[in-house]
Formats: sequence, C-alpha cells, structure tokens
Amino acid sequence: MLYFDSDYMAGAHPEVLQALVDTNLEHTVGYGNDAYSERARELMRRAIGVDDAQVMFLVGGTQTNATAIDGVLRRHEGVLAAESGHIAVHESGAIEASGHKVLTLPHRDGKVSAEDVARYIREFYADETYQHMVAPGMLYISQPTEYGTVYSLRELEMLSTVCHDNNIPLYIDGARLGYGLMAEGADFTLKDIARLADIFYIGGTKVGALFGEALVVTNKSLLNHLFPLVKQHGALLAKGRLLGLQFEALFSDGLYERIGRHAVAMAVRIREAFRRAGYEVVIESPTNQQFFRLPNDVIDRLREQVSFDYWGPRGEHDSVVRFVTSWATTEQSVEMLEGILK
Amino acid sequence: MLYFDSDYMAGAHPEVLQALVDTNLEHTVGYGNDAYSERARELMRRAIGVDDAQVMFLVGGTQTNATAIDGVLRRHEGVLAAESGHIAVHESGAIEASGHKVLTLPHRDGKVSAEDVARYIREFYADETYQHMVAPGMLYISQPTEYGTVYSLRELEMLSTVCHDNNIPLYIDGARLGYGLMAEGADFTLKDIARLADIFYIGGTKVGALFGEALVVTNKSLLNHLFPLVKQHGALLAKGRLLGLQFEALFSDGLYERIGRHAVAMAVRIREAFRRAGYEVVIESPTNQQFFRLPNDVIDRLREQVSFDYWGPRGEHDSVVRFVTSWATTEQSVEMLEGILK
Amino acid sequence: MLYFDSDYMAGAHPEVLQALVDTNLEHTVGYGNDAYSERARELMRRAIGVDDAQVMFLVGGTQTNATAIDGVLRRHEGVLAAESGHIAVHESGAIEASGHKVLTLPHRDGKVSAEDVARYIREFYADETYQHMVAPGMLYISQPTEYGTVYSLRELEMLSTVCHDNNIPLYIDGARLGYGLMAEGADFTLKDIARLADIFYIGGTKVGALFGEALVVTNKSLLNHLFPLVKQHGALLAKGRLLGLQFEALFSDGLYERIGRHAVAMAVRIREAFRRAGYEVVIESPTNQQFFRLPNDVIDRLREQVSFDYWGPRGEHDSVVRFVTSWATTEQSVEMLEGILK
Amino acid sequence: MLYFDSDYMAGAHPEVLQALVDTNLEHTVGYGNDAYSERARELMRRAIGVDDAQVMFLVGGTQTNATAIDGVLRRHEGVLAAESGHIAVHESGAIEASGHKVLTLPHRDGKVSAEDVARYIREFYADETYQHMVAPGMLYISQPTEYGTVYSLRELEMLSTVCHDNNIPLYIDGARLGYGLMAEGADFTLKDIARLADIFYIGGTKVGALFGEALVVTNKSLLNHLFPLVKQHGALLAKGRLLGLQFEALFSDGLYERIGRHAVAMAVRIREAFRRAGYEVVIESPTNQQFFRLPNDVIDRLREQVSFDYWGPRGEHDSVVRFVTSWATTEQSVEMLEGILK
Repeated sequence: MLYFDSDYMAGAHPEVLQALVDTNLEHTVGYGNDAYSERARELMRRAIGVDDAQVMFLVGGTQTNATAIDGVLRRHEGVLAAESGHIAVHESGAIEASGHKVLTLPHRDGKVSAEDVARYIREFYADETYQHMVAPGMLYISQPTEYGTVYSLRELEMLSTVCHDNNIPLYIDGARLGYGLMAEGADFTLKDIARLADIFYIGGTKVGALFGEALVVTNKSLLNHLFPLVKQHGALLAKGRLLGLQFEALFSDGLYERIGRHAVAMAVRIREAFRRAGYEVVIESPTNQQFFRLPNDVIDRLREQVSFDYWGPRGEHDSVVRFVTSWATTEQSVEMLEGILK
Repeated sequence: MLYFDSDYMAGAHPEVLQALVDTNLEHTVGYGNDAYSERARELMRRAIGVDDAQVMFLVGGTQTNATAIDGVLRRHEGVLAAESGHIAVHESGAIEASGHKVLTLPHRDGKVSAEDVARYIREFYADETYQHMVAPGMLYISQPTEYGTVYSLRELEMLSTVCHDNNIPLYIDGARLGYGLMAEGADFTLKDIARLADIFYIGGTKVGALFGEALVVTNKSLLNHLFPLVKQHGALLAKGRLLGLQFEALFSDGLYERIGRHAVAMAVRIREAFRRAGYEVVIESPTNQQFFRLPNDVIDRLREQVSFDYWGPRGEHDSVVRFVTSWATTEQSVEMLEGILK
Repeated sequence: MLYFDSDYMAGAHPEVLQALVDTNLEHTVGYGNDAYSERARELMRRAIGVDDAQVMFLVGGTQTNATAIDGVLRRHEGVLAAESGHIAVHESGAIEASGHKVLTLPHRDGKVSAEDVARYIREFYADETYQHMVAPGMLYISQPTEYGTVYSLRELEMLSTVCHDNNIPLYIDGARLGYGLMAEGADFTLKDIARLADIFYIGGTKVGALFGEALVVTNKSLLNHLFPLVKQHGALLAKGRLLGLQFEALFSDGLYERIGRHAVAMAVRIREAFRRAGYEVVIESPTNQQFFRLPNDVIDRLREQVSFDYWGPRGEHDSVVRFVTSWATTEQSVEMLEGILK
Repeated sequence: MLYFDSDYMAGAHPEVLQALVDTNLEHTVGYGNDAYSERARELMRRAIGVDDAQVMFLVGGTQTNATAIDGVLRRHEGVLAAESGHIAVHESGAIEASGHKVLTLPHRDGKVSAEDVARYIREFYADETYQHMVAPGMLYISQPTEYGTVYSLRELEMLSTVCHDNNIPLYIDGARLGYGLMAEGADFTLKDIARLADIFYIGGTKVGALFGEALVVTNKSLLNHLFPLVKQHGALLAKGRLLGLQFEALFSDGLYERIGRHAVAMAVRIREAFRRAGYEVVIESPTNQQFFRLPNDVIDRLREQVSFDYWGPRGEHDSVVRFVTSWATTEQSVEMLEGILK
C-alpha cells in the first residue's frame, strides 16, 4: 500500500528520533528549562534572525493556536481568519472555548487578501453599532494554507501592513511552514515571517517531529506571560526536553529545509503525473498537498493500492481527492504511483 | 550526579522507547484511530476489568484533568478537591479557565476523608443561600496523593459511597497510579479503581512513558462526547499511535507493575537510609516520593553530589526535601546515596 | 420631534409603571421568590398552556440568550442561527464568551428554513472530520426576526420537527414576541410557541416593560439548574419582584396583546404612507419594524422633524432606513408623519 | 410585620422613583447614550473628584464584579479576596465562569489586612513553582464588608500602597458604599475611595435605587473597552437612561448621603436596643448590618412580629441573626422593635 493521506502518518524523521534515543536515559529538569531546549531556542532565534524573540515549545497545532490567540486577544475581541482557516473549521471550537469569536473572511484557495482585511476593519468601525459587535483583535493566516497555497512575500507584506496600520497583530499558523518555505517559487524566508508577523509558530508535527510546535513571539509587548498561559492551556509538556531535542535536530544541518524540499519535490512529481494522466489539478498548489478531480471509478481502482483522502464529499461522477507528501514519502512510492497512473 | 528531583527527568522506559523506534517508519491513520491504539485500549479494558469502558489517550496530566472535569461538570458546578490537590494548586488555573471553581477540602497528608466530603455536601445544601453558591458536582482525588500517600481500599470505598449517595461522580487522578498500585501495603487493585471511580486516568508520563495519560470512563452515562471534547481542549495528538504504542508496551509483560515495584523499592531503601542516618521522615509515604527534614548544612553538602528539591521554603536551620524515584532510578544510584548518607 | 428609532426609547407602559409605583414601599423577599413573581409565573404558565413550565425572569435580551444557550449546550456543541441572528451579530460575542460557537445559516429576510437546518446537520455528520468540528447542539431563531418578518405556524412546525428529528432543542428569541403574535396575518399563538419550542423567552423590554424578559422552559429535561445558572450569568435581579410585577401587569387584562396590536397597527399605517408616497418597502414586514429605501435628500429633510435610524450604511444616492413603533407610538405622531410624507 | 431581612426588600427611594415616573413617556436613545446618563456621569465625576473618570452604569452587583474583574485580569491571573468576600462565596462561580480563580485571604470580620496581601504576593513569587500557580492580578475588597465592618482611611491607604507597590490594581466592591460613607466613625470620603482604588463601584440597588451600580474606573490605562465588555457580559441595559435617572437622583440634593445616614442611624438604634436587652453584639458593625447572638426561643418569639435572617446555621441553644436597615426602614418600625425588645 502507498500512503498519501496526510503528513502525520509516520513517526519522526530518523535524525529526530535518534536525538531522542541518544538522550533517553539522561536526567534533566522539566518544563523546557533544560539545556537542550535552551539550545533549540537559540538555534531558532538565529534562524529567524531575532535575537530576543520568545520561543516556547508546545505539543500540537490546535493547542498552540488556542493558547496564542487566547493570550493575545482582549476579552471583547475576536480573531479574523479565512472561512477555510483551521481555527474556523477543524479545531472543535477551541477558540470559542476560550471565549473568542472567529470572525471569518472570504478566501481564494485558502488565502485572504489585504483588501478584504482592510475592508472588514473599515466597515466594522463605520457601523454605528460596532460596540455591540465583536472587534477584530488580530489576524490569523496559515502559511501554507489548508489548500496547499502559499502567500507571496508581497502578499505577506501587505497583510502585515494592513494589520499594523490598524493596530492588530498578525499571527501565522505555520503547521506546515517547512513545506511553504521550500514551495515551488517561494519568495519568502523564515526571517521574513519573523519580521512581518508578530507571533507565529513553526510546525514540527507535520514536518519531521514526532510532535511539537515552536511558538515564536517577536513583538515584545504582546505576550508577557507565556509560561503560565501555556500551562493553563494544558500545553506544557513535563519532559519538555523532548520538544527541545526535536527542534534542535530539525534546526541542525539544514534538516528542516531538507525535509521541506524533499516533500515538495515528491508532491510536484505526483501533481505532474496526475496532470499527464489527464486529470484536473483543482488547486495550483506549490507545496506538499495536492488536489485532483478524479472519476469515481478511477478513485475506487486507485484505492486498491493507494491510500488517500477525499477532499469534501464524494460526487456523483467524480470527486476531489487530496494527496499529501512528507519527509516519509519515498521516491520509490512516488515512482510506483507514477507507474499506476500511466 | 545522582538525580532524585522528580519522576519525569529521564525519557521513556527502554521497552516503551523500543516500541516507538520499531514502528517509526510505518504509516497509520491519525488521532488514535490506528490499530496500535485500539490494541492498547483493549489491553487496558482487560486490565481494569471493564469490557465497555471508554479509554482515551491524552498527552499530559493538567490537560487530562481539565478535559475530564470540564466534560463532567455542568456549568453551575464545581469540583471538590483537597486544598493540596494538583488541580487546586499547580495547574495555573486550568480548571477555572474552563469556567469551574475548585471547592477545597481539608486534607491529611494529601488525603481527604469521606466524612469531610459528606459534611461539605450536607452543609452546602443546608445553607439557605446555596443556590447562590457553587454546587459540588464531582470529587477529585489523587491516588497516590501529591504527598506520596495512598488511600486504602476501605477509604476508596467510603469515598465512592459518599459520592454515589450524593449523586456526584468520583474522579481519580492517577498521574502516579503505577507507584500507588505497587505501594508498600497497598490493598487495592486497578480493578478496584475502575469499580469505585466513575472516571480516572492511568498516568504514563511519570510511569515509564515519554508522555501520555490514559483517561478511562467506566460510568457510561457520564461523558458521551469525549473525542471532540479532547480536541477542543487541544489534547488530541495528531500521531495518536504514539500514545497507543506506549500504553501497549506499558500494559504488556507486566511492565507497568514492574516499573511501579522497582521505583517503590528504591524509594523505600532511600527512606530507610535517611531514617538510619537519624533524619526525620516527615510523611510516612509508601510510594516513590519521600519527604525528609534535613539540617540546611546537610542539604548543602548533599547537593554537591545529589540533585533533589526542597518541599516548601528553606527554613532557618532545617528544611523539608523531597526525593523521588522512577523506573529510571538505578540500584547503583541508590547504593551511592546510601554510601553518602553513612 | 417624532421618534421611530427603536422600541426601547420610552419607559414602561403606564399600567406597568403603575404596578411598580403602587407597590414601591412594600417589603418582599428577593430574587424572584416573592408572591408577585409567583403570580406572574402562574399567569404566564396559563397563557402558554403548560402547567409545569419553568418560568424565570431575567433583565435583558443578550443576557437571556447567553444564559439559555450556555445552559442548554454541552461543551463541544454550538448553536445554529441565521447569519443575521442577534446572537451572531449584535451581542458582542456573549455566546462565545461562554465558550460556544455560533454556527451560521443562510437566511431570507432574517428567517432560516427547515431545509437549511436539515441540510446543515446532514452534511455535518456526513463529513468524515465532523468530530473535529463544532456539533450543532440547538437551533436559535428569533420570532419576529431582526428584519421584522415572522415565521408562519407551518414554518415553525417544520423547524420544530427538524430539530426534534435530530435531537436538538429549538430555542426562540422572543424579544419582540408581542409584536409577532399580533402581526398582520399571524397564524400562530403563544401556545403554539410553547408547544413547538423547547425553550423560549417572552420579551418585556421592547414590549411595554421598563426591562425584563421571561425565559420559559417547557422541555423538562433540558435545564434543571436554572437559578444558579442565572445567578452565575449575573442575570439575577436582587429585587426580583420588579420583574414579577411587570410581567403580572403585562399578562393581565390583555395588556401584552393590546400593546402588540397597537404597535403593529401604527407600523402598518407608516408602511402604507411610505408606499403611497412612492417609496420602496424593502422588506414586507408585518410587525412593528418597517424598512424603506429613501433618497438621501428625502432622508435629510425628514430628519429635521423625525428621528429614525439607517439600516446599514448610507448609500450614494439612496439608503435603507428603519422605522420602529411600540406601545409608546401615538396615533398623533403617526398622523403627523403621514402629513409630512404627503 | 417589621422587616429587617435585607436592604433590597423595598422598591426605590421615592425621589428616585419620581425621576422615573416624571420621564416615563420621553423618548431617548438607548444604552446609556442619553442626556440623563451623561448628566449622572458628570455628577458622579464631580462627587469623586476625578474629572476624567470612566463611569458606566450596570444593573446588579454580581454582574458588575464579574465584568470588572474579567476586564482587568489577564488570562493567567486570579483575584485576591477575603475568604468571606462576596465573589468568593455568593456569586455562583461568576468569576470562575469568566475563567479566573478567586485567591482567598484570611479575614477579620470580613476585612483583609495589607500585611496578608503583601505576604501572599511575596510568598507566591518566592515559590519556585509559581509559574504553575495562578498569579495574583488584582485585589478585591468590599467596603463595607459582608460583615458590616468598614476599612479605616489608614487601612485603605495601606491596601492601596501594597497593591501599587506590587503593580496590581485595587478594586472596591461598593454594593453598600453609601452605608459605609455614613458609618459611625467613618474617616474616609468618596474622594478617598476614588483616589485609592483603581476601579470601584458605587452601589445603587441596596442604597435607594430600584437597581443599578455605577462602575468607576479612575486608572486610565486599566480598562479601555468597557462598553463592549459590559455588553458581552449581558450587563448593558437597553433603556440605559433608567440607570442614569436613578443615579442622577441619588447624587442630587445629597440623597445618597441622606439615605446612608438614615439607615446607619436606624441600625445603631437597633444595635443598642439589643445590647440594652442583654444580648451579645457579635460584630462591632458601624453600618446598616448588625449581628446578634440570640437564644433560639427569643428568635422564635421575635419572628412572630419581626422578619430577619439567620447568619449561618441555627445553633442548638442560640444562633446568630442579622438585622439590616435601609432608606426604607422607618423610625416607627425601629421604635416598635425597641418596644418588643424591652
């Protein structure tokens, strides 16, 4: 069986796992106060080019989003996000559970536009009843998006500008940031992300780690009490060094880039294989997620050898499906898929 | 250096780690829907003797407590707990963050009495203004307690009876349950816990796992929507099999018992070594946590070779310290400590 | 100046105020446990035809919605509502502040359809990822709606059926229920509302009271702990008799009906005056709220003598405005408006 | 029957009620944006001596506390309060419902000491695990307290100093502030309250209004978004002028002082009558609440003619009872009580 369902089907990249194995019997203090975590934080500060950034390691994406957004927003504020944003759809109401409304914006293939953000804020304050409505208190975007698309540097700059012109912070969900940085044609760097966002996270779970997300706060006045907030959200790992060790590995020897580059290359080969086979590429995604429209009988036949998910409901005649690659996608498996599609 | 600070200083028990290493490159579905997790759930249902118990794997203790308590309580209810209970003291207000008050009871060495629970409930409803106060909606106890002590079977039965007589569920925090089950003189089994509690968790983080807690609901009507609740609390691990694999290992070949037995044996040896050396044993703990009163100069000298924590503030002349063992405490390290204490 | 801005511009209907004046110096117990409140509850139970309905008096609409919805929903659930629903737009995130998402449905002039509710629920559970999304746990509708429109008996029956077929309660926001019951062509009664909804409120603030809403729960298993919940939401009035007295007055001598009938008659006269004057009636509203499209210069001239609000932003050439009547709208003021419009 | 159960048994002081009656048929805009509310805010700013204080009118005490505390605290913080504080005991968990822990301090007759506040904060930050605990984020006191006692100016100054030395705001619950200002021997003024507290409320419900509390924020950087916060808490009255009118009346012609002085005078006469009759005065209260220990048979006989409450449970032989006066307590009723006690 070939597996293309998601980027969290395998364990950890071998180099990451090795770091855990090598240190397993060592004793260190807990909660991220160990030397490995400190080293990882240093490596990441260097990678993002912000010496005094706060870096905090959490376990998963939903919990990182909920903690960051809850920590940044004031009680009367909500968070702007694409209608398709992960926090708006697939987090079981975690944002609302902490008391905040997700204010949704239209999107194009998962991306919101600076114009739409500006319009939302302008119309909000133009409404005489705005004090009875939930004020937009920050902007959430995912890079890459849930549809595999990527904001260009120009788009990121415009979003950052519209946020700061309106005094709301920009938060970037980087669950798959590694695949975005290495996307086809990507023109932004990790340093750009750090410069343009006020707070963001660098995803580990989907990019080589067993689990773990690195929350980074570059806007110094934004979140002064991250530790108890993380603890309150149940997001503080007792053996915090496990997170430090993994991010230390990911940010050593270019591993994070290598993982991103490999997965994107595999995804592009898959995309082109489907295109050559005459199927519609539904979204022009330059990252590790690819979306195709396939006749249902083709889907049924493929599924005998290949595991992948529907994207949305099964249609009458054809349906959209998603193929996802990761560090764990082998060249061999892609070749086999290419063979099947021929 | 010898380490006795806590039971979460090392990685995972080698058998647990091996399970992760062996399966690292496999692809499975996420969120605990994989075969390893299902097998682990089956093993645990067998171990607790309840065929239809719900078993759900979460990552850490605070998040498990917050999820369970939030799921069980109705909006106007609070949770009864010892003043010294983890949820009352050391969870950064996670219970309150989900909207619920922790109603505190007096304790003796970390334990609450059935009499005190009964009295609290009786006096609550006898108060004419009780509708303006937070109703006790469940009882939280930790087994073993934060002081290393253990409820006897008789005490657990009385607590269970007083809860059910008053129609409130009993929840047991088993962060260190493995050390309680193997405590000196322990007269209760895992099956007793499952029979007497309505909901409880079997701790992994402190008992051999890298991380992970198994939440068990035996009262069928209590919590029908555990999955989205866990997701909402940010406690759903994407690569859920990591939890399943670890608990499968812990509940195979008697590993959970072996870990508990070893750590308790090491702790008892340490306790007796301190006693022989003439120091006060502050709490008669039969588990892996031990508390001694030591002159400050002794502490200072010990700390040159041994790492351990104060329990409370440093006193003027002497102070209380805590020594903790785990699966990772070697016989050799205990012998060395014994040597130092002679 | 003539006032048509809203239905909460004047004090209380004179008969309601008189009840407060007449009893002002009496001493009674607080929190709604007085004889006036009990009498009012009895009157209301009779009016709705449900002998054992719970009736609880709260102060305002947002607080009543927040309390009712928070009390009914379980933690992982959200409330379905029209995109235009008051809870979705104009309550400053009060529903989210208690932890719940508002799940929005499309609307036609403020009304949702049973088909759309059924489709939402069907598609929700058809989605393989539904456990990661917020489950629809109740349906909120307003009767009349924020656009002045009214659900017919047939529509209410269909909504009630679709809710109960799917095991979710139906909640009706009756902030202006009095004006709905007396709407042109209204074919439903208060008894229908009580029969079809599981929980609803009968608005006082906008229908003759100084303030106050009567929350009615007819589904016995729905909300067993209303009193502490209301207190927890800060919605329990110390001098609870003030609410009882007002609702006793409103439900004596047909006052609630008289108020509704009068305001609707005034609104219809205003609507027809605008129509005769050649202006567009934007929504065919049979209740006390009317919406017209007027040239901006007409608006500017009118506003010299008449006070009313824009409905949405001012357009370039013309704009939509809202005219609202209440018990306090005098025949004389309507005549004067008719005169101005000629 | 004579009524001394509480200070919210009657309606409004006649001068307050008259203001409502006189203006009943007027039309004004809602939500406190009317001229009456503006005038009332001006009167209150003058009375407290702070020209730019924010003044916002809410309906009741629990809702005012919940809104103020929720607005001031950051997510990881809790509120310090006496164990006997209203927010700690009698608000059905309203503070916890907004996500915050009430951190309790010991009290003497309802009062906390600056020493205890200082010690709490000092020990909190001295604890190595403080980041896992709920940080004290503000201090709540009631003036007068739930036991009728009053902080002296010196005590208030010390509490204010300890708060500001530790960078936490001081919040004063003034539900009965009118009776405190006119207490026997009171040495503080409303201007002192405004100078020493960062935020406080001036109670109306128990001091002459039908309902209503005036929340005052003098610390400018504390709460910039009061309006939507009040709305979100369901505490925004649609007919906001009702609150403005009442506070305008209370702060005109010295009414607030007259009410306070009268009620205290009545309470003192009652206290001395009980003392002369040989009964124990349990708390030396200089305000409108008085506490006596009476033999149970005396209580039973008194209750045939006089209505009052137990303070705590009925004892075997004697019990503590509470007598409360207000603006509505007549000289005649006190004379009759004196007669009965002779």
